[in-house]
Amino acid sequence: MKQWKRWLVFCQTARMTDLNIYHVDLGDRSYDIHIESGCLASIGAVMAGLFGSPSRCLIITNETVAPLYLETVQASLKTAGWQPQECILPDGEKYKNCESWMKVMDALMASKLSRQEPIIALGGGVVGDMTGFAAACYRRGIPFVQVPTTLLAQVDSSVGGKTAINHPHGKNMIGAFYQPRLVWIDPTVLKTLEIRELRAGVAELIKYGLIRDNQFFTYLEAHVKSLLALDSKVVSRVILTSCRHKAEVVMADETEQGMRALLNLGHTFGHAIESMTHYSEYLHGEAVALGTLMAARLSHMLGYTPDNLELRIQSLYEATGLPTTIPSFTADQWLDSMGHDKKNVGSRIRYILLRDIGDSFIAEDVTHENIRALIASY
Amino acid sequence: MKQWKRWLVFCQTARMTDLNIYHVDLGDRSYDIHIESGCLASIGAVMAGLFGSPSRCLIITNETVAPLYLETVQASLKTAGWQPQECILPDGEKYKNCESWMKVMDALMASKLSRQEPIIALGGGVVGDMTGFAAACYRRGIPFVQVPTTLLAQVDSSVGGKTAINHPHGKNMIGAFYQPRLVWIDPTVLKTLEIRELRAGVAELIKYGLIRDNQFFTYLEAHVKSLLALDSKVVSRVILTSCRHKAEVVMADETEQGMRALLNLGHTFGHAIESMTHYSEYLHGEAVALGTLMAARLSHMLGYTPDNLELRIQSLYEATGLPTTIPSFTADQWLDSMGHDKKNVGSRIRYILLRDIGDSFIAEDVTHENIRALIASY
Repeated sequence: MKQWKRWLVFCQTARMTDLNIYHVDLGDRSYDIHIESGCLASIGAVMAGLFGSPSRCLIITNETVAPLYLETVQASLKTAGWQPQECILPDGEKYKNCESWMKVMDALMASKLSRQEPIIALGGGVVGDMTGFAAACYRRGIPFVQVPTTLLAQVDSSVGGKTAINHPHGKNMIGAFYQPRLVWIDPTVLKTLEIRELRAGVAELIKYGLIRDNQFFTYLEAHVKSLLALDSKVVSRVILTSCRHKAEVVMADETEQGMRALLNLGHTFGHAIESMTHYSEYLHGEAVALGTLMAARLSHMLGYTPDNLELRIQSLYEATGLPTTIPSFTADQWLDSMGHDKKNVGSRIRYILLRDIGDSFIAEDVTHENIRALIASY
Repeated sequence: MKQWKRWLVFCQTARMTDLNIYHVDLGDRSYDIHIESGCLASIGAVMAGLFGSPSRCLIITNETVAPLYLETVQASLKTAGWQPQECILPDGEKYKNCESWMKVMDALMASKLSRQEPIIALGGGVVGDMTGFAAACYRRGIPFVQVPTTLLAQVDSSVGGKTAINHPHGKNMIGAFYQPRLVWIDPTVLKTLEIRELRAGVAELIKYGLIRDNQFFTYLEAHVKSLLALDSKVVSRVILTSCRHKAEVVMADETEQGMRALLNLGHTFGHAIESMTHYSEYLHGEAVALGTLMAARLSHMLGYTPDNLELRIQSLYEATGLPTTIPSFTADQWLDSMGHDKKNVGSRIRYILLRDIGDSFIAEDVTHENIRALIASY
């Protein structure tokens, strides 16, 4: 087919569907985020184009996603000439550990993938993080493709190349900055997502509103019900908006030397909550929501926000159906979980705080006493 | 002190000692290789200069090196204002595995090192590889310093940023390209090195002669006895020459897209030998020597070398006191260990072969049958 004909077909297809492509420009680590309803079934062909010619590949997924979408992906890959193998992990944040990661490494060794052959993450943030970190380390780096199947992964974790596993004493403490070669997002898969998982994903959407987009926060306040009902226009819009925000931040600061830290709003407290509850009580997005409420209250206590934004944020979380009650631990437990050096009172860690909705900043001067006062307020 | 006075003192010191500094230019990942007798005792001061101001740091070493040199390094660090902690691993290639690496990660978590605080590898190649890989992954990357204490690490593995641990089914299969911030080489520590370890290090020196420096090979043939007797002039010269070769190759091809693969001469066979003998029978350098003899014979069998270089290389290995008898395994065991896909007869892996001493190349067309014929010749 001639070039202009191909372009015509492309434009027609793009109009007919909800196709959106966002290019993440990171030099020789650049890649596309492709968002399109039903695109799961065309992953094989696009990967054949991306990697030159189809060969072996390995799909990493979990016990929840495999019965739903593994067959579609396998069939698409096989039709395009790939020889897919698969590795199915247990589902849940508590399995994002060294043992599961070694299972992926074992599967990679058994598959004998070369340095050129890709690994595919089919699942949520846990699958994506673990697959990405395995891709970063197997033979010192092989290509990987993100096919996120949860809202949280589609709007946040699949983009930007932060990969990691948890250490028993800290979340995401073992990992790498390692970019995917493609992010392939099919919003229709959200129809099978548990409502609790969907709500947890909304927490990360709200985060983008809070850190850099006041209008988006207002949009979410107005549309959270349609979003939870999976109104396709709303879903497409929020995925594209958050992927754009994530990509912009990552392009400006890939390895978190500065502004990328803003994406951690609510995460310092949130990670501590996940760690103290052994990754089994809260979903990551739920813990982030709780952590964000704490960051909002701390911002107010330190005088950065004239009004207490906490209440407005809490209302949106409540409308979403997210938890809003901070779990009870001692101040020492909080400090320890957040990596404070208790022996060194002068030691400080960074917190992301708010000045307003859509206006966040990195605070370097939060003291142990500030944190103790915050904890005492609950 | 004024700039010119400092320069004068530097020049006088450099003349008085055997100081050599080689700069590895890799953009924002550049670093110096510093080679100087007795420099172990000044590591603290130079690190204080390099990292701005002294803070916490973590020394990784092993049970053999700790009683010999840990105190010197700790004292130097403390004098310069550092607060060193340490993690002591068992000694040996068979401990270069996920368990030991997790011990390092545990020590990093316990030390609460920030993303800016450095980790120091004090030991041979195993300590360096594991520390480097831990540095690459802890908090997605912290600075690390190589203080190599074996000949092999001083002439090869401490430079170039290849870090890794072994998988039960393959050597160095899990790792990262991650450059150190400094390589600090004190040749005087070799006086406590076991003679077998010293000989294993010479195998990597011989490798540089074989792949790209005919004259250096001839020099080693003439000076191997003085080298094993630790003649300081010979030791300094061979360390500098091999670091220069390593750095040149790494600067041209940091992540092994091409010519860096030449450094793997003897390593495809050598890694298979290490893996098949469970990392407990041969030192890495010994396995590389055996692998190099196999590569030399294969080069001759395939018609690349008119004369059989194997005999000349074998003589130098014998003079060094390295093993020269290829261990006995079936061809299937060899093929499997070297990552050949037995189900796919067409599958090929890369071998580094020789045209002459100092003239090596990457062969992509070695077949299963070639390897079977080679194995049958023993």
